[in-house]
Amino acid sequence: MHNSPFTVTTLGTGAALPARGRYPTAQLVNVHDTFYLIDCGEGTQERLRVAGVNFQRIGHIFISHLHGDHYLGLMGLISSMHLMGRRTELHVHGPPELKEIIDLQLRASGTWLRYPMHVHATAPENGREIMSDPHVTVSLLALKHRVPCTGFLFREARGPRRLRVERLGDVPQFKRAAVKAGEDLVFPDGKRIPNTELTLDPVPARSYAYCSDTAYEPSLVAFLKGVDLLYHEATFTTAMADKAKETLHSTAAQAARIAAEAGVGRLLLGHFSSRYKSADVLLSEAVQIFPNCILSYEGGVFPIESRP
Amino acid sequence: MHNSPFTVTTLGTGAALPARGRYPTAQLVNVHDTFYLIDCGEGTQERLRVAGVNFQRIGHIFISHLHGDHYLGLMGLISSMHLMGRRTELHVHGPPELKEIIDLQLRASGTWLRYPMHVHATAPENGREIMSDPHVTVSLLALKHRVPCTGFLFREARGPRRLRVERLGDVPQFKRAAVKAGEDLVFPDGKRIPNTELTLDPVPARSYAYCSDTAYEPSLVAFLKGVDLLYHEATFTTAMADKAKETLHSTAAQAARIAAEAGVGRLLLGHFSSRYKSADVLLSEAVQIFPNCILSYEGGVFPIESRP
Repeated sequence: MHNSPFTVTTLGTGAALPARGRYPTAQLVNVHDTFYLIDCGEGTQERLRVAGVNFQRIGHIFISHLHGDHYLGLMGLISSMHLMGRRTELHVHGPPELKEIIDLQLRASGTWLRYPMHVHATAPENGREIMSDPHVTVSLLALKHRVPCTGFLFREARGPRRLRVERLGDVPQFKRAAVKAGEDLVFPDGKRIPNTELTLDPVPARSYAYCSDTAYEPSLVAFLKGVDLLYHEATFTTAMADKAKETLHSTAAQAARIAAEAGVGRLLLGHFSSRYKSADVLLSEAVQIFPNCILSYEGGVFPIESRP
Repeated sequence: MHNSPFTVTTLGTGAALPARGRYPTAQLVNVHDTFYLIDCGEGTQERLRVAGVNFQRIGHIFISHLHGDHYLGLMGLISSMHLMGRRTELHVHGPPELKEIIDLQLRASGTWLRYPMHVHATAPENGREIMSDPHVTVSLLALKHRVPCTGFLFREARGPRRLRVERLGDVPQFKRAAVKAGEDLVFPDGKRIPNTELTLDPVPARSYAYCSDTAYEPSLVAFLKGVDLLYHEATFTTAMADKAKETLHSTAAQAARIAAEAGVGRLLLGHFSSRYKSADVLLSEAVQIFPNCILSYEGGVFPIESRP
């Protein structure tokens, strides 16, 4: 159905302590071959290189919160973009203190970036749109964590209406763009064919939601309704529910409950505590509540597909 | 001669741009099984893990300057030490702005370290002693770079005097510590054996100097005289001497010239520009000026040996 890519690459799936071959959180979102980065733990620039991604193509970076495992790779990436001759602008979205942190470190290193960088302050506020371009709109989700923390909801831009194959011959070449944009077809003699006779609705726009780090937070459900792919953190098993509550993280079962209540298409789990050698134990707890559930892994590429 | 280890492990040998399997600068110095870290580029905690080092044993971290490739791994390491339950104190030595950078990021992440951390401000000043413990004394070297930058000179503490094997029988067990400390041996009847008859001088104390990043700086020579192992940056070949001058880095030949003029025991090269696929070209230029010259590599362990 969709010809244009919409994927997420999970570059790191570990929690605060790097271990067991897991890296700290970072995700590359590809919408129609335009690149966006969510979070940027230490070593992200290397993970991007391993994944074969030209990071100069990233135009927007979204930082969920200022725990080190979600942003300590940002300065290195900003610096490498500079050293490799970047000239195109970069937008960084994150908590208010992020600008001070970046500016202080640029100043201390005597660096004057050769490309324009804009740092935009976020605050946990459900539904506020923070970015829009021809491919996607990004809005915020208010997560519940020990420091201010936002999730991000990516909604693909709606494509054009699709010409009905059997009516193609009725639409002159020079009128096709207008008809796909929704106009009726009007002939010189005044005859009019309504647009709905000639076209089908656009391919449904796809959506991806990113929720990490967060405690179990049912108020998110209203904003996640019908999302095609939900990434939700799943730091602990149910046996560790107390620890999850104390540290404002989620169990895999809680992630699945959010997915079930929001009726999402698919649930992608990540942010696994280093205590779990394999994340299978987390998956097995989640699928009992929400079957369409998968584990993220280092370098995994997950397509965002419309629900049937 | 020496029973106690004195080694340096080069964890990263790249310059500003990570590439070609090289990591940014970090070195672990082991003096008598006590650990010190010099510089801490992004990913250092992972490199320490790969090298099998328990980083909780590091008591002092020395940061040469605030270019990202020399310190962006520090926050992650400080944070992992905290998460892994460290209680013992940590000393960080570096440029004055470092304290503000650390404090700001700890504050933004809501972290209250459970171990005492002391951040000490350095300034490029040749010979100033900044740390001394029973194993080693560390003093500063004034490097010449685009931002304030210090090198570090590690001088092993002098060991005890050594009992002459042939005179062992003359020294009662309970007097040996005193004699090794330099005292004459005095018997109840007043008879005295001078210490020099019973002992030999201590094993010569070894020394290691770290010079990165720096332009060719002959004023260092006086402070590097007779050092056993000198690590000196060698970012460029002689063909790139103009670039070295412009960026305040050194060519391999310039590093060798410093080594030759200071009469060091051995020269260890590093901080190779990503343009060189192999660092052999740098080595071949250096050995023409100073033959006792070796290349550092990721994870390489280099013993510091007294010169004959």
